[in-house]
Amino acid sequence: MLEELKEKVLQANLELPKRGLITYTWGNVSGIDREKGLVVIKPSGVSYDGMKASDMVVLDLDGNRVEGTLNPSSDTPTHLELYKKYPDLGGVVHTHSTSATSWAQAGRDIPLYGTTHADYFFGDIPCARSLTKEEIEGEYERNTGLVIIETLEERDVNPVYTPGILVKNHGVFTWGKDADEAVHNAVVLEEVAKMATFTEMINKDADKAPDYLRDKHFYRKHGENAYYGQN
Amino acid sequence: MLEELKEKVLQANLELPKRGLITYTWGNVSGIDREKGLVVIKPSGVSYDGMKASDMVVLDLDGNRVEGTLNPSSDTPTHLELYKKYPDLGGVVHTHSTSATSWAQAGRDIPLYGTTHADYFFGDIPCARSLTKEEIEGEYERNTGLVIIETLEERDVNPVYTPGILVKNHGVFTWGKDADEAVHNAVVLEEVAKMATFTEMINKDADKAPDYLRDKHFYRKHGENAYYGQN
Amino acid sequence: MLEELKEKVLQANLELPKRGLITYTWGNVSGIDREKGLVVIKPSGVSYDGMKASDMVVLDLDGNRVEGTLNPSSDTPTHLELYKKYPDLGGVVHTHSTSATSWAQAGRDIPLYGTTHADYFFGDIPCARSLTKEEIEGEYERNTGLVIIETLEERDVNPVYTPGILVKNHGVFTWGKDADEAVHNAVVLEEVAKMATFTEMINKDADKAPDYLRDKHFYRKHGENAYYGQN
Amino acid sequence: MLEELKEKVLQANLELPKRGLITYTWGNVSGIDREKGLVVIKPSGVSYDGMKASDMVVLDLDGNRVEGTLNPSSDTPTHLELYKKYPDLGGVVHTHSTSATSWAQAGRDIPLYGTTHADYFFGDIPCARSLTKEEIEGEYERNTGLVIIETLEERDVNPVYTPGILVKNHGVFTWGKDADEAVHNAVVLEEVAKMATFTEMINKDADKAPDYLRDKHFYRKHGENAYYGQN
Repeated sequence: MLEELKEKVLQANLELPKRGLITYTWGNVSGIDREKGLVVIKPSGVSYDGMKASDMVVLDLDGNRVEGTLNPSSDTPTHLELYKKYPDLGGVVHTHSTSATSWAQAGRDIPLYGTTHADYFFGDIPCARSLTKEEIEGEYERNTGLVIIETLEERDVNPVYTPGILVKNHGVFTWGKDADEAVHNAVVLEEVAKMATFTEMINKDADKAPDYLRDKHFYRKHGENAYYGQN
Repeated sequence: MLEELKEKVLQANLELPKRGLITYTWGNVSGIDREKGLVVIKPSGVSYDGMKASDMVVLDLDGNRVEGTLNPSSDTPTHLELYKKYPDLGGVVHTHSTSATSWAQAGRDIPLYGTTHADYFFGDIPCARSLTKEEIEGEYERNTGLVIIETLEERDVNPVYTPGILVKNHGVFTWGKDADEAVHNAVVLEEVAKMATFTEMINKDADKAPDYLRDKHFYRKHGENAYYGQN
Repeated sequence: MLEELKEKVLQANLELPKRGLITYTWGNVSGIDREKGLVVIKPSGVSYDGMKASDMVVLDLDGNRVEGTLNPSSDTPTHLELYKKYPDLGGVVHTHSTSATSWAQAGRDIPLYGTTHADYFFGDIPCARSLTKEEIEGEYERNTGLVIIETLEERDVNPVYTPGILVKNHGVFTWGKDADEAVHNAVVLEEVAKMATFTEMINKDADKAPDYLRDKHFYRKHGENAYYGQN
Repeated sequence: MLEELKEKVLQANLELPKRGLITYTWGNVSGIDREKGLVVIKPSGVSYDGMKASDMVVLDLDGNRVEGTLNPSSDTPTHLELYKKYPDLGGVVHTHSTSATSWAQAGRDIPLYGTTHADYFFGDIPCARSLTKEEIEGEYERNTGLVIIETLEERDVNPVYTPGILVKNHGVFTWGKDADEAVHNAVVLEEVAKMATFTEMINKDADKAPDYLRDKHFYRKHGENAYYGQN
């Protein structure tokens, strides 16, 4: 069942340690089959060494396990909320990558300082608020998803144009049209976070890049007038 | 004698350079067999290349060498004091890992800024005071253990909940239910220290994470209501 | 056609990920055959894994594709402007390497703080201004080249003596007598940028190196009185 | 001639890139045979890939080439001055390692913040002054050695107890009883420099470690009462 998707989600998960985004098991990737309405996600707390496609857990969008014997990632309800709200999402990633998490702990949006950022994220990368005591003590992981959605909605952010977010005092979520692209965006976000840290060290009053530079670079790679790459 | 434990302690020691926690021989791991009351520890100043299980030194809790021909790590008396005081400890690690040692040199506790920290350490990671001239010129390594204990006791810190500490102007000690977990905690502490450094660079007035977030994450992974992982 | 140059440009491109200068496809290297007036450059958005010499694109200096089926790097017009203006350039590199790009985002020249810098760059490494809205919405990549040239000319910088430049809010361009040397200079510029960042963290009022030290080191390696190396 | 020493000096040179201390050819190691009064040093500007023991250059203490066809490192006169002044030195290293060079560019001594430092360096690591215009335009490399000696003498520093120094706006020199130990000290100095940078970021008013802690750690590893290691 969903053998191809399980293999893809496995490979996307294995990319996380290979790219230096996670320590031990601190991350998870999922992918969705929109036709069947089924999500494939990494099992909880399982080591990346020797993980197999058959270890991936298959769930429906209500979180019922449809296949697999292992517990799904404890962050599963966050993934599900994002899939339910945004039909364009095909893959979701959660990590505690060093620089991005440092911005999350600092409680700040990552300012759009340059084209590296603008090639992938159409604007500052938002930092969602901390959850309240009630949200945390209730359905914590589900509420994390709801707070991400609240932040994107309130700020009128199109998640396809800004494929990632920080959650204050916690970590980072990214997404994409599939699991692979979601991981790609997690790698980019970490690099952009690192550069933004250094940028402010070098010039604490650094200006954001102008909007027209953002537009140019984003649309060079995205949308119908894109001319980057081979398509 | 204690062949299995020696092999485990060897492997835990070898994990230190593999995880980037040490330069040359600047670290040591021990493990204890509580039934026999015997501690297995790395020999002093021996290179990690080609180290064998049979090089591990076996000692009783008074520091008498029971097996092995090499000198035990010069930090052995610190390990012994921790084992004697806290019966739950099964492994102890000492390193000079870069970020954690920088906090120790800065003489500051590592603030609990986020869930990465709270998943493993239930509160700030304390920085014990520098030893006095008398403590240093006396039984230095033993006194290091006593100052660690003094700090944990004075602050009413449960070492099972906060499995590591900094020692001012020196380095870091971590522990766990066995040598493996102690090393795991040393890796986490280093990563948490690095993130805390960046967090303050990004926002010098960053707030600590709220207590209810700490509680949620810590108890998600520890204690009878834990639901992270496969158990 | 130009098989040797294509192989050299391929190898120079592959050096970028090997030296840690790029993430994914964020960089490109070109080389020129001055006799034939033809430029060889990496194709756009193509992964470094499995890239072959035959994937390289051959263009004339007006940007007409002379050989190859892939689209050339989207930054090609920048390379062409530099080749047309400066006949001594044999290779050009563009990257978003972490520290250099952080200086570009900070909008600052990299001060000449020491001999590591002076061994390769005869003076501060300039940061060119951001392009205007009109320049960006027009022939963006060509205008990037023109702004680089404008900066070098206005400041009376000899590009053979200062083989690299930052472009504000964007990234870094370097060059050399061939593709290899251009990559070499990109590696040096990144290291120099990193050191300059740390230098200012350690001493925010650090002084630049004196001119006579710059002269000594630069001319030790360059020009007719050079005595470094085996020539 | 001196085959064993040439092999040792080669291996010590190869350790520099392996330990991440150098980029390209930015470093050199020498060793001395005190009985014969001959120094073996790396050739100038030669790549580390494929370097052979037979490429090493043999010189007398006046700098006359006794064996070898390649030019010796351009920094050779600095090495020679150090060997002539201090009979205890058996190996000398020069690098531009990132953190140490950043302190040199910042023009500051590296404060003794902790035991990692005190295990190898008995006090702050001095930063020698920049050379004057005359010193630079004269016998530059020899004068670099003389300024290092001037600094050690003026501050009454025993080079056996403080086996390394920064040179302002330039880089770092270390030494030891042989080429191996000199490289070991270069690795330590770089790590200590990195930790000191972070220490001040975490606490800009960090205190130096007390003298009695320095004494304890230094003499634990050095001198007749040393008890670290297996001797």
